[in-house]
Amino acid sequence: MSYRKRIEKAQILLKEKNIKAVIATSPSNFFYFTGTWLDSHERLQAVVVTQNGKPSLIVHEMSKEEILPADLFDTYFWKDGESSIELLAKLLPERGSISVDNQWPSQNLLTLMKLTNHLSFVDSTEVIGKLRINKDQHEIAQLKKSGAIADDVMKEAIQFIKPGITEKEVAEEIKRLFASHEVADLSFSPIVGTGKNGAIPHHQSGDTPITEGDMVVIDLGGIKDHYCSDMTRTIYVGSEPPDEIQKVYEIVKCAQAEAVKAVKPGVPLKEIDRIARDIITQEGYGKHFTHRTGHGLGIDVHEEPFVTVNNDQLLEEGMVISVEPGIYLNGRFGVRIEDIVVVTATGCESLNHFTHEMIAKNENAGLTIQ
Amino acid sequence: MSYRKRIEKAQILLKEKNIKAVIATSPSNFFYFTGTWLDSHERLQAVVVTQNGKPSLIVHEMSKEEILPADLFDTYFWKDGESSIELLAKLLPERGSISVDNQWPSQNLLTLMKLTNHLSFVDSTEVIGKLRINKDQHEIAQLKKSGAIADDVMKEAIQFIKPGITEKEVAEEIKRLFASHEVADLSFSPIVGTGKNGAIPHHQSGDTPITEGDMVVIDLGGIKDHYCSDMTRTIYVGSEPPDEIQKVYEIVKCAQAEAVKAVKPGVPLKEIDRIARDIITQEGYGKHFTHRTGHGLGIDVHEEPFVTVNNDQLLEEGMVISVEPGIYLNGRFGVRIEDIVVVTATGCESLNHFTHEMIAKNENAGLTIQ
Repeated sequence: MSYRKRIEKAQILLKEKNIKAVIATSPSNFFYFTGTWLDSHERLQAVVVTQNGKPSLIVHEMSKEEILPADLFDTYFWKDGESSIELLAKLLPERGSISVDNQWPSQNLLTLMKLTNHLSFVDSTEVIGKLRINKDQHEIAQLKKSGAIADDVMKEAIQFIKPGITEKEVAEEIKRLFASHEVADLSFSPIVGTGKNGAIPHHQSGDTPITEGDMVVIDLGGIKDHYCSDMTRTIYVGSEPPDEIQKVYEIVKCAQAEAVKAVKPGVPLKEIDRIARDIITQEGYGKHFTHRTGHGLGIDVHEEPFVTVNNDQLLEEGMVISVEPGIYLNGRFGVRIEDIVVVTATGCESLNHFTHEMIAKNENAGLTIQ
Repeated sequence: MSYRKRIEKAQILLKEKNIKAVIATSPSNFFYFTGTWLDSHERLQAVVVTQNGKPSLIVHEMSKEEILPADLFDTYFWKDGESSIELLAKLLPERGSISVDNQWPSQNLLTLMKLTNHLSFVDSTEVIGKLRINKDQHEIAQLKKSGAIADDVMKEAIQFIKPGITEKEVAEEIKRLFASHEVADLSFSPIVGTGKNGAIPHHQSGDTPITEGDMVVIDLGGIKDHYCSDMTRTIYVGSEPPDEIQKVYEIVKCAQAEAVKAVKPGVPLKEIDRIARDIITQEGYGKHFTHRTGHGLGIDVHEEPFVTVNNDQLLEEGMVISVEPGIYLNGRFGVRIEDIVVVTATGCESLNHFTHEMIAKNENAGLTIQ
């Protein structure tokens, strides 16, 4: 991976936008520029890139033994009791616009604002955002690996599901399955929503047992070598799903597939949202699709671009997004199907390959793909 | 838990400090005021408390089914495609100082600054910080439970350690042990640093196998009912620790014990740091103690107050801090001992009770407390 290239690209963007420097502080942005994953929590860690010259690193002395690409950066260590923000301020130009990490805790930004007089601040969407939104070949390869593991874990997790076990037990099994694929960290705590809990899109897996006749939403993702996966399937527990469940499932499946078909360079992100939303709305479930159609994914599980109703941004080759429409019937059940796709020169390629067909999980007969 | 009381206390602080409103956005601060754990990731969730009247909640409509204390708040829902920050701006007074969550992503603060003309912004140390720094009886009870589980997990994890297994395997075992105590979420990924890796205070557990003659630093913590634990022990793998290891261990043990003895209301936090640091420095290892002596702990694993060399703040009853001095000999080994203590009316009480004596873990003879 050429971190030098990433820094050069950042410097070109800084000049184009007339921004004097960019400060990258989140673990994921720090990793993007250095290849070192460092999470100093509340202690400041930063990559500072100015328009010209060697960029700087600010690292707590506790992390002195971490492997940092010393040739690319001038590194400044600080220790507890010292003001890391004062150190940062000294590395910035005296005047002009400074781009700060979107995720930077406001407390730090407010401190920096107090310490400086002639600087203005903007977020990093136009600098780091622009870089990270287009994945290079190395990143796409990493995301493919991560996606393939999610496919396997989904398949194995569905095998595990049966009436009587709780959402939490399934979530714990998903964690174990990721660990067995050498994925120790998850993109997020697995969402297992059975029956009416499936109608809460970000339901926290709880003690509700899975019951015959339930639809179960399973949303999972792991982090393999710092790149995330994220996928969702919804299965039926029983032998023969009732008509309404089949109908809702088919609408979501169709909305997801049609939205994916439309993904190619030059198409506005809002168009992808519109296609999925229109199909669901035409079938009378529009108000039950309560979230955007998707989000970008990479080192972070949710990152730019977002697939929302009003995002005019155009899809470009190398963007990676989730396509995940859903229908949520409060107090009853929910259905969501989610894959990650990477935008190619002419369309897109899915990073998930597990079936979209309705699965009926029957305790006696096992798993039936309808 | 009286959330009403917490809101009233926040309103008193706002008036005292002449701050017009406070915006609480992090999952932990949102939980502190509402009792609902909600993590909307990049989607805004906020508790807005003004000097008088009913406070407001801003929640994404996807979370409509979450249990929110409706009687205490006016709740405003927003959906994807809408600007949640515009909604927030409408709930704020037109003029004056606004306190924002220390953890709030800078991108949101910068957007809010652009949308408003006559507001100034300060961090939330003087409002939310002041409230959360003093734990009430309910919180202390929760932290005790959490601490007791950490004690058990530490004991069990040490049983598991033997030459040949890797740091990662121990870390995975620690996760399993917490899960077996019904603790699904961890305060942080367990730190297992064997041999020279133990000299990196925040080492990421890796593929290094534990070898006979290693010191192993084990730093672990889980989150029980939203309250964290955090503790560290360092053990010797083998039957008879060499003299230098014994000496370094005794210095750290003594520094930790003396610092804990000094914890009581009215003592400056820097004094606790000084006591531990002086003992280590007098023995010639001062430059190898590369971090602060401790940090606050509660709903977050690192929160105020911080036990640093220059923190003049005085200890008060109800504060909860870690006391965790360490000595790190680069390329060789590290030793750290950490307990959580709660400040009482006359001193402090430890929330961890697992032994501080040197443990030698001998594969044949088992565990020996020296």
